[in-house]
Amino acid sequence: MCQDIQPQAKERQVIQLKGNERIDDLMCRGRMLIQDSNVFCFGMDAVLLANYAIVNEGERCMDLCTGNGVIPILLEAKTRGRSFTGLEIQAASAELARRNVILNHVEDKIEIVQEDLKNASAIYKGGAFDVVTVNPPYINGRHGLVNPSAPKAVARHEILCTLEDVIRESAAILRDKGRFYMIHRPQRLVQIFSICNKYALEPKKVKMVHPAADKDANMVLIEAVRGGNPQLTVQPPLIVYNEDGTYTDDLLTHYKH
Amino acid sequence: MCQDIQPQAKERQVIQLKGNERIDDLMCRGRMLIQDSNVFCFGMDAVLLANYAIVNEGERCMDLCTGNGVIPILLEAKTRGRSFTGLEIQAASAELARRNVILNHVEDKIEIVQEDLKNASAIYKGGAFDVVTVNPPYINGRHGLVNPSAPKAVARHEILCTLEDVIRESAAILRDKGRFYMIHRPQRLVQIFSICNKYALEPKKVKMVHPAADKDANMVLIEAVRGGNPQLTVQPPLIVYNEDGTYTDDLLTHYKH
Repeated sequence: MCQDIQPQAKERQVIQLKGNERIDDLMCRGRMLIQDSNVFCFGMDAVLLANYAIVNEGERCMDLCTGNGVIPILLEAKTRGRSFTGLEIQAASAELARRNVILNHVEDKIEIVQEDLKNASAIYKGGAFDVVTVNPPYINGRHGLVNPSAPKAVARHEILCTLEDVIRESAAILRDKGRFYMIHRPQRLVQIFSICNKYALEPKKVKMVHPAADKDANMVLIEAVRGGNPQLTVQPPLIVYNEDGTYTDDLLTHYKH
Repeated sequence: MCQDIQPQAKERQVIQLKGNERIDDLMCRGRMLIQDSNVFCFGMDAVLLANYAIVNEGERCMDLCTGNGVIPILLEAKTRGRSFTGLEIQAASAELARRNVILNHVEDKIEIVQEDLKNASAIYKGGAFDVVTVNPPYINGRHGLVNPSAPKAVARHEILCTLEDVIRESAAILRDKGRFYMIHRPQRLVQIFSICNKYALEPKKVKMVHPAADKDANMVLIEAVRGGNPQLTVQPPLIVYNEDGTYTDDLLTHYKH
């Protein structure tokens, strides 16, 4: 949950909006987000991941596949982490993320780097980060895609990076006992555990997200620890909707200030 | 759930009870069970597993670590499977399971075999079974055990068989696309998936069992398919207790006739 502290007033800067862009209120300490509806707008998954990740005071955080930067902007607002880096391969998204950093006056805490995540281990030394977060493309391959180079397709399908790329690079840049947080599809959980094992990222906690109490899970939140001991905790499930179609109290705590 | 069909009346046989034995009503088509409170009495896990396993008409079923035979006795009562075999390494438990078969007049459907499960693949040819069920010892190793040869210790700790023994032998005796059903501790789920992968048993469904909606899961039900395609479904969670300490309606459906 977000701490109820107002950001300090800073000198106003002029931020330009482009063609299909809009500004949304993140409902967290006054943070705002420019989004481009032609590219990819953040959804419930980003909010859930930013609430699930634990960032302790002074920790260095990396968000892979950062897109418009929503995760580092939320984490900077919610935690006392020292620094937040967002890596994004697509130039237009990285540029948008940089404008979001300026919009929220957090240039001293958040750095956006335009780079292929497959190069992360070459750029950053091992142990450079205490925490890695990632909301990666969920869909395996390019099945059914009309235009695999479209920004939306890149954000949703494993076109420019695979699940194995994400986990391998995360393990490489985390310190020993550093924490990895990912939100993904439960359908891929067996593969996720298997690849985590391969790179010594031990899954320690999972939380299933069910649209309703009697429905299959459609998202899973995962915490893995680099070099951790094997012992998994399956946390209480998060149910999104009540029977009457309203949000559950549990879900709403993720959106409260 | 149990079908509401009464078993055919058969000639009565005299069943002897020994020292600490008692007879319990399985609340399913009149099935009864002799149990020895000095060895191991069936619990909620056996009932949940017998309800979770799908057995189609004419299928051949194997229950490993069958103990007093509760799983094959429940499955025979609930399904239209052709045959049910229960494998049990401990002589006293196998003998008790055989008396339970006689008590319930199901000698024509259930066979109890006293054997080490590590020999299952040597005894039965590949593809001998359509379904394997198992409620194995949950606890890794002999930590804290005063008497590792005690029957209760053997049923709870991995003394006479490991998780890998269970999965390897199950995969070896199942037909292609045959189904494996296990109940275990969520703490071991990463290891379970990993060993299943090693023996081409693909986890297809998991159902988490939580003591309450806001508590971590303490059991997990798993369906894996021999040679299945990788795609996991995380089914709706089963919550055991309501906030007021009563059983949930969902849990009670597992105990209804």
